[in-house]
Amino acid sequence: MTEPSFPMSDFSGPTIRLKPKANARAIRHGAPWVYDNELVTDRRTKAIAPGSIARLEDAEHNFLALVAVNSNSRIFARVLDRDEAIKIDAEWFRAKFESALAHRETLFDAPFYRLVHAEADGLPGVVIDRFGDTCVVQPNAAWADVLITPLAEALRDVTGVTTVVMNGTGRARGLEGLEEKTEILSGQVEGPIPVPMNGATYMADLMGGQKTGLFYDQRPNHAFAQRLVAGKKVLDVFSHVGGFALASLAGGAASALSVDSSAAALELAEKGAEVMGKSAAFATRKGDAFDVMAALADEGETFDVVICDPPAFAPSKPALEKGLRAYERVARMAAPLVRDGGYLGLCSCSHAADLEKFRTACNRGIGRAGRAAQLIHTGFAGADHPLMPQLAESGYLKALFYRLMP
Amino acid sequence: MTEPSFPMSDFSGPTIRLKPKANARAIRHGAPWVYDNELVTDRRTKAIAPGSIARLEDAEHNFLALVAVNSNSRIFARVLDRDEAIKIDAEWFRAKFESALAHRETLFDAPFYRLVHAEADGLPGVVIDRFGDTCVVQPNAAWADVLITPLAEALRDVTGVTTVVMNGTGRARGLEGLEEKTEILSGQVEGPIPVPMNGATYMADLMGGQKTGLFYDQRPNHAFAQRLVAGKKVLDVFSHVGGFALASLAGGAASALSVDSSAAALELAEKGAEVMGKSAAFATRKGDAFDVMAALADEGETFDVVICDPPAFAPSKPALEKGLRAYERVARMAAPLVRDGGYLGLCSCSHAADLEKFRTACNRGIGRAGRAAQLIHTGFAGADHPLMPQLAESGYLKALFYRLMP
Repeated sequence: MTEPSFPMSDFSGPTIRLKPKANARAIRHGAPWVYDNELVTDRRTKAIAPGSIARLEDAEHNFLALVAVNSNSRIFARVLDRDEAIKIDAEWFRAKFESALAHRETLFDAPFYRLVHAEADGLPGVVIDRFGDTCVVQPNAAWADVLITPLAEALRDVTGVTTVVMNGTGRARGLEGLEEKTEILSGQVEGPIPVPMNGATYMADLMGGQKTGLFYDQRPNHAFAQRLVAGKKVLDVFSHVGGFALASLAGGAASALSVDSSAAALELAEKGAEVMGKSAAFATRKGDAFDVMAALADEGETFDVVICDPPAFAPSKPALEKGLRAYERVARMAAPLVRDGGYLGLCSCSHAADLEKFRTACNRGIGRAGRAAQLIHTGFAGADHPLMPQLAESGYLKALFYRLMP
Repeated sequence: MTEPSFPMSDFSGPTIRLKPKANARAIRHGAPWVYDNELVTDRRTKAIAPGSIARLEDAEHNFLALVAVNSNSRIFARVLDRDEAIKIDAEWFRAKFESALAHRETLFDAPFYRLVHAEADGLPGVVIDRFGDTCVVQPNAAWADVLITPLAEALRDVTGVTTVVMNGTGRARGLEGLEEKTEILSGQVEGPIPVPMNGATYMADLMGGQKTGLFYDQRPNHAFAQRLVAGKKVLDVFSHVGGFALASLAGGAASALSVDSSAAALELAEKGAEVMGKSAAFATRKGDAFDVMAALADEGETFDVVICDPPAFAPSKPALEKGLRAYERVARMAAPLVRDGGYLGLCSCSHAADLEKFRTACNRGIGRAGRAAQLIHTGFAGADHPLMPQLAESGYLKALFYRLMP
């Protein structure tokens, strides 16, 4: 197909090459990453500036893809395009954004969603959330830092947003050797933005980082919970800015109690409830989630529906065993707070804990609490968080809903 | 806890006993089944009439559970209750139905759902679907055949239905050594019943067996598909009585084409479209699904959304490899019928093909069709099909939705 050795383009950047034993076939079949140990890395290769675009060749010098290179990352190269003649410029970004936008506009009536979910949307390492007229870009790979200007230009062109924020926080940038920095690239951000989702209103503080931002990924799981809560008393543990609690109030819950350790997050949850006209049905309790669950049990409190959406207890493989024990503990402490015949929702956003391991931990925790259960629903992240099919086991978010038997 | 050897009840039936090496702990922790090779089976045990209730003891003669016995089945005993003093009578059935009904009434506004989903609802081997004033009981274990009278009595009492049909068809009864028989136990059935689901109307022929009945399990996957189809052209392959096609029309699809090999099923689909006032947007094509997909490709037809919901290609382990090849073939033949940027839904109701194996087969088929894709959604059976948590990997229904890239 492609002529070996004779580039068809006027591409003038560096070339990197797979080792003979590396899996060139996987790249041809859509694998998005090349690890450092799969490449011939000499001094010249290592000297390529992080974020540069390079040609990737197989061991026989056949062109494979244009890739973004970062010698500071274990993922040395990320596939950008399989067309050697293409230029990675604002026009290229525009095509990616147009495709991503078409999918979200099919899914949602209002412009509040994850617009770009990294590799699966053709922009490796790049996450973009849209909040109406504002987009928040997380360039979690070096190449996107380098190309942030044409990226932001194309983003404004395609979506019509005025404000673009670069959110350079989080674990992923550390793995890429990138510094933390958050800045407004265009427009302005004035206070928290009201975000409509599932009939609820969330207040998202886009400049406060992950602690007070908003996650769109739980949207379908919030929606599922809404089907269980009409007229019911709901407890939302690890509530963040009110995720399941405000969804429950929008779904007709009689009352909702949000538990979180962050005062700033709970304040935004309260503001959301206020905007929804639901303050009278809403309460918060600040504190360590485990402590608060123990206290509620001591007080003899029970709820019709309890949902726990903790932070990633097992973000990486070394943390897996400890993380699974923490998930089991959440289940064990939450189950006694659910009335007979009530519902328990347990979530994990840990990459390392796959569905089966997470479910086993939850089952065990519920069993140790002396409760029998039905598993009624398994949910994942919403459809605005697409996955590459061959990396689908990497779907990090899982939500399990149990009914605790009468 | 329980006194060994001295039954606390006036239970007068037979007693069966686990072998010393059998896992009594599993039974104590909620396992629902005992296989024939886990039991001390002598002549006396083997002579117990299929469907009898027995006491199950561990090897040390400690009471474990009241069980339903069937010496003709590999599953020799199914746990009914862990309370030795309980009687398995209409009152006992009533309690099970009340619990099952409470859950469904939480989930649904209208009385159309799976009311009892076997083990997870505390009635091993028993499946009951409700269609308004009619319940269809599938007693897929011998004990339920024996106790069908008190079962049906309690069912009418608790739900208020007038008509109860016993549907004794299907593979599960064969494994239990039970004969095929379908009969009306009370009330009457006159022609197909209109069933509202997701805003569509399906016509279910309750006396025609599985070929023209209705499956509630796809409800959430139909609902997901509805979010993709507004104004779109939809193809529903293996459509049965119009599953995804009628859901799509209710979701605003411009047109839907149902493909199925059963003329009777397609006729019911047409009747459904008629009741919905959507006949003008609906068409059917009778034939082998693979042949019809090949013909559509030859005709150069493409669709915005294609959904394939085939019968179980891998119902059991020996059929797994062949079944996976069939799923791959479905994906490979369906993908070319999807326009660039359109959606492809692929379903499996095979017990033996787990999520990962099924996904791999689908990914491969799409790849072989030369299409790149995003996986946007993974769905399972609805919440009226609960699972025992420890048997959750047995969730048979999977639905994968892909977006085929522009």
